[in-house]
Amino acid sequence: MENQNQIYDFRSDTVTKPTEAMLEEILKAKVGDDVYGDDETVNQLEVMTADKLGKEAALYVPSGTMGNLIAVMAHTSPGQEVILEESCHIYLYEVGGIARLAGVQAKTLKGVNGMMKVEEIEAAIRQENIHFPESGLICLENTHNMSGGMVLPLEEMKKVYKLAQIKQIPLHIDGARIFNAANYLKVDVKEIAQYADSVMFCLSKGMSAPIGSMLVGTKEFIAKARKLRKMLGGGMRQVGIIAAAGIVALRDHGGWLDLDHQNASTLAEGLNAIEGIKVDTEKVHTNILMADVSATGIKVPELVEKMKEKGLLVNPRNESLIRFVTHRGVNSNDVEAAIKIVKEILA
Amino acid sequence: MENQNQIYDFRSDTVTKPTEAMLEEILKAKVGDDVYGDDETVNQLEVMTADKLGKEAALYVPSGTMGNLIAVMAHTSPGQEVILEESCHIYLYEVGGIARLAGVQAKTLKGVNGMMKVEEIEAAIRQENIHFPESGLICLENTHNMSGGMVLPLEEMKKVYKLAQIKQIPLHIDGARIFNAANYLKVDVKEIAQYADSVMFCLSKGMSAPIGSMLVGTKEFIAKARKLRKMLGGGMRQVGIIAAAGIVALRDHGGWLDLDHQNASTLAEGLNAIEGIKVDTEKVHTNILMADVSATGIKVPELVEKMKEKGLLVNPRNESLIRFVTHRGVNSNDVEAAIKIVKEILA
Amino acid sequence: MENQNQIYDFRSDTVTKPTEAMLEEILKAKVGDDVYGDDETVNQLEVMTADKLGKEAALYVPSGTMGNLIAVMAHTSPGQEVILEESCHIYLYEVGGIARLAGVQAKTLKGVNGMMKVEEIEAAIRQENIHFPESGLICLENTHNMSGGMVLPLEEMKKVYKLAQIKQIPLHIDGARIFNAANYLKVDVKEIAQYADSVMFCLSKGMSAPIGSMLVGTKEFIAKARKLRKMLGGGMRQVGIIAAAGIVALRDHGGWLDLDHQNASTLAEGLNAIEGIKVDTEKVHTNILMADVSATGIKVPELVEKMKEKGLLVNPRNESLIRFVTHRGVNSNDVEAAIKIVKEILA
Amino acid sequence: MENQNQIYDFRSDTVTKPTEAMLEEILKAKVGDDVYGDDETVNQLEVMTADKLGKEAALYVPSGTMGNLIAVMAHTSPGQEVILEESCHIYLYEVGGIARLAGVQAKTLKGVNGMMKVEEIEAAIRQENIHFPESGLICLENTHNMSGGMVLPLEEMKKVYKLAQIKQIPLHIDGARIFNAANYLKVDVKEIAQYADSVMFCLSKGMSAPIGSMLVGTKEFIAKARKLRKMLGGGMRQVGIIAAAGIVALRDHGGWLDLDHQNASTLAEGLNAIEGIKVDTEKVHTNILMADVSATGIKVPELVEKMKEKGLLVNPRNESLIRFVTHRGVNSNDVEAAIKIVKEILA
Repeated sequence: MENQNQIYDFRSDTVTKPTEAMLEEILKAKVGDDVYGDDETVNQLEVMTADKLGKEAALYVPSGTMGNLIAVMAHTSPGQEVILEESCHIYLYEVGGIARLAGVQAKTLKGVNGMMKVEEIEAAIRQENIHFPESGLICLENTHNMSGGMVLPLEEMKKVYKLAQIKQIPLHIDGARIFNAANYLKVDVKEIAQYADSVMFCLSKGMSAPIGSMLVGTKEFIAKARKLRKMLGGGMRQVGIIAAAGIVALRDHGGWLDLDHQNASTLAEGLNAIEGIKVDTEKVHTNILMADVSATGIKVPELVEKMKEKGLLVNPRNESLIRFVTHRGVNSNDVEAAIKIVKEILA
Repeated sequence: MENQNQIYDFRSDTVTKPTEAMLEEILKAKVGDDVYGDDETVNQLEVMTADKLGKEAALYVPSGTMGNLIAVMAHTSPGQEVILEESCHIYLYEVGGIARLAGVQAKTLKGVNGMMKVEEIEAAIRQENIHFPESGLICLENTHNMSGGMVLPLEEMKKVYKLAQIKQIPLHIDGARIFNAANYLKVDVKEIAQYADSVMFCLSKGMSAPIGSMLVGTKEFIAKARKLRKMLGGGMRQVGIIAAAGIVALRDHGGWLDLDHQNASTLAEGLNAIEGIKVDTEKVHTNILMADVSATGIKVPELVEKMKEKGLLVNPRNESLIRFVTHRGVNSNDVEAAIKIVKEILA
Repeated sequence: MENQNQIYDFRSDTVTKPTEAMLEEILKAKVGDDVYGDDETVNQLEVMTADKLGKEAALYVPSGTMGNLIAVMAHTSPGQEVILEESCHIYLYEVGGIARLAGVQAKTLKGVNGMMKVEEIEAAIRQENIHFPESGLICLENTHNMSGGMVLPLEEMKKVYKLAQIKQIPLHIDGARIFNAANYLKVDVKEIAQYADSVMFCLSKGMSAPIGSMLVGTKEFIAKARKLRKMLGGGMRQVGIIAAAGIVALRDHGGWLDLDHQNASTLAEGLNAIEGIKVDTEKVHTNILMADVSATGIKVPELVEKMKEKGLLVNPRNESLIRFVTHRGVNSNDVEAAIKIVKEILA
Repeated sequence: MENQNQIYDFRSDTVTKPTEAMLEEILKAKVGDDVYGDDETVNQLEVMTADKLGKEAALYVPSGTMGNLIAVMAHTSPGQEVILEESCHIYLYEVGGIARLAGVQAKTLKGVNGMMKVEEIEAAIRQENIHFPESGLICLENTHNMSGGMVLPLEEMKKVYKLAQIKQIPLHIDGARIFNAANYLKVDVKEIAQYADSVMFCLSKGMSAPIGSMLVGTKEFIAKARKLRKMLGGGMRQVGIIAAAGIVALRDHGGWLDLDHQNASTLAEGLNAIEGIKVDTEKVHTNILMADVSATGIKVPELVEKMKEKGLLVNPRNESLIRFVTHRGVNSNDVEAAIKIVKEILA
């Protein structure tokens, strides 16, 4: 099964390549200059997206990082404070952009499985005081990457959104993998998006489009976002070329995500059965899993290196955890191969 | 010749659509996750570009605006001053990004045909004084859009670059259309790029790729730029999809630009021959021309509207000027049609 | 008259020292913690100032630079554009703070005697366009330092303010020396302040208080400004210590400014009578004069140095101009002495 | 003892008023324009301060907030990350200035008695990664306000400074009350300052000067800081007027702080003896104490209001804590009166 020259890439679902159908649509795409609003394909994608998420309007952006950054800039004023979970992507992996570019201060809270407690959010909201920045935004991440792709409970999201509305503070979801969350919860993605003023999600990652993310919200919010996109340099020209693949992603992703989640589950059980490796299979909600390898006696970087030698690519998380991500580029055979490789290394 | 239903789009060369060859290369492109450096196609484009411009390294960015913004951020520190021509694109058309995002102050000088005088640049460089921001960057634009696509004289560029080096101030060229400049000057593009520490140019516009611009400079500069691109949200995934078209643009643009310049010249003469319209044909260096319509007695917006009704799309510049841009999407017949439409309107 | 060891300091009115009456009031001042609103003296100064300028509210700030910066920050959002005269203090001498700290882009216009033409301001106001920053503020400077302390014509100010109101763009006056302007125009300072949404003026300079400036505007504007002052670090504690001197300045400055203007006028005529020196006496409105020394054949730095050797301190402006400023620290004898020194040097 | 009309102000040591000696020195102060470096008194204070703290140079600033802000701006580049304790003053009470004005991201750690653990700081320092902001600064606060004025252990500071040096990350101390820390530790203030690249401390607060704080560091750092002070609007004119009081504060504070600490200790014991009130007397290191009133059954705001009615002013901290601060404005009789008032209310 395993093949010395084959690569099993479990680093991230960002490595997925476009499907045949995507390439076909790219070829056929009607394009125009999006700055003049002339690109029919991206226009179609934006309408389709807004409808699917249950929001008034949508905007195509070149990356999830830009989508989140624009959301923060559009919702806040510089000098305000943003409440977010301490291991969320915006805070950890977006190069400090919300500080340098949006000028906002991060107020981080420790979540449980990626979800901040509503009481702690409430306590973190600033009172009126001349010494204090104002609380300008709450951000949630769903699925929550650093918790191993766990899905935030809908009930909890509802409570936080209610609080946000009472306090008149906007709520943004970094939903890079929100379709994975909807798949796990077996709900329409609208059911999640209803608890937010804006949502960003990626057409790349599990959705398999080569490039692009979408930002949704009210018309007014998206108009502001469109101008900020231009300022940041995210306004592009014949966008239809890549938007065409996004349309296919929105249409076809269902089956892929089913498989990804199934593969992650199989992989979790397989790894957990190996002595020295612990995976909390209860926590494997979607296509990400964290394997605790501390009991193997091998240091994470060394173990990652040994896997790499055998063609198994993964990402180290910290001193005890290794992250595996399933996606359209790995199938059930690859999962078996991955388990086998790990077994061999630890044998 | 003219056809009631046909559109003659002289608004901008940004409206160009990808060529057949580009679409073919897109289909065949080897892609990967560019954040992991795994996209062979974009890697190839970056190496090819650095070589062509005679610089150490290159970076793919989603737009010219982002390329310029990154250059300003990478060369300066917030609070510094940037010297630029008062009608340049960075200052007029990039949403104030260099102020909000880079935190630099614009020091604008009035140029002659888009070129600032070296003595005025020298006088604008700040002395050491506790009240003064430091001069942190000089920007040139070549070709210069608002002067009607005029090309900066190489001799002048050389003088400014010499000054910049003496004063230890970096020099950036917004070379969105630098290949048009090289075509006009009949020199290799390196001859222009040698007088700058960094250059941004567009693969879209006359070069006809659907999306993307390139930034070139030293390895150190590009490393810094790569991180800033990530912060701004310009780091994308399977970039090869669009980079493939960029490779074709770099290879094939020569003939297109020849034709564009020829068409602009024919159009300039044709329009100039119409009573009430003045085009300074001496100043039509490349693919842009400014037509002074003030002697027609018709206001610019009204005239633009009348043209639009007849399928001729152009951009108003100010109260007396209308801009026409030639590009791969308009041929010599379209130029004749355009002249005819204007004649009819003014008859 | 002239005394080898005596210093005649015409560099700036910022060198004025507190009066006896100020020191007495400082000693008697009731102070408290201004952050708690407990400092009676500064409270009194703020009420008195608002009343004198005809505005709703006032705020004490440690410097004119901070007053202007706060005004820009309170009126604008980052990314907007501010229209100001190209040689104004905010743009030239405030360390680029409005770019780095307020994040706004400067749109500079060349004024005549410090006053921008209303038509040029109107043309500079940005249209609605996704490429454009919004015009967020117009700044005037009165008296205008770099034009030699000239006073802006009330009629012109009225026109600009009317335009600003129509366009719904706020107007701020950097009125560091607005009391000099009122003195020259022989009007109440309210007559000038009525044509602005906010005004900053200095209690130091000709007003002779050791420290401090005032910012005035609506209650809402001042509340915002108070918080921004805290953010910038301009919120101080027992402010009454210095505010007490400000109260004296507001009460007693009239006579001092009369004398300063008279002395400047005498000095202007005296210098103008010296061969090689030209002072446009018509333009000496207040306490500043620019002497053109280019016909002396001596370079400005050398001439300034020669003056310094004889105890006469002045500030060079550029390659042909030297600035003289009169103030409470120089009397009519000092003016005579200054003229004599210059005569001797050029003899 | 208690007097119906008398006010016992335990809100903060920021309410201290200048001493007689300070007012005398203010009257006699030789002043000049500090922007020209002409103010002898502030020059003297800066030399004296640098010497006392064992650093190369010092700068007078109008507030502690500005001193901290300048330090952050001078040590970092926008987009970097600053490691600080989650309840420190810079993060909680300085209006988000480090985000809006310095553009840095806060990385907060929970300290023990105000001190972050060195291992946690080490773990918080970012690795090299294109997704990560760089760690640009570590900030400590000594004494630590929100922990009740507790003093950081010298040994711990030494370890953190050693780590900072190894990682080549600068370390700044917000030492608003560093002289209280030195007093408690019975060491020269230099012994604390040696473990930092820069220190800010206040001349107001327990030191009793009406206005002003000092920033110390290397000559190069202070030169940078001086320019940033100008940009922020903290450059003032005849600064000697207030600097004179700072010189007295540096000379005379010793006895005052002794008494303040003694009074805090007496107050802590007195309050702790009252049923329903808990003060951890071990933690009362300096002039601040936190009284836990949750066992009284009265809500904090109500209790604070009752105290106010009897002339006892204090600051609520959260739902269970009230903060008392001793200073030169309250003596041992006032402490007795305060204890009596609290007893009466709870009787």
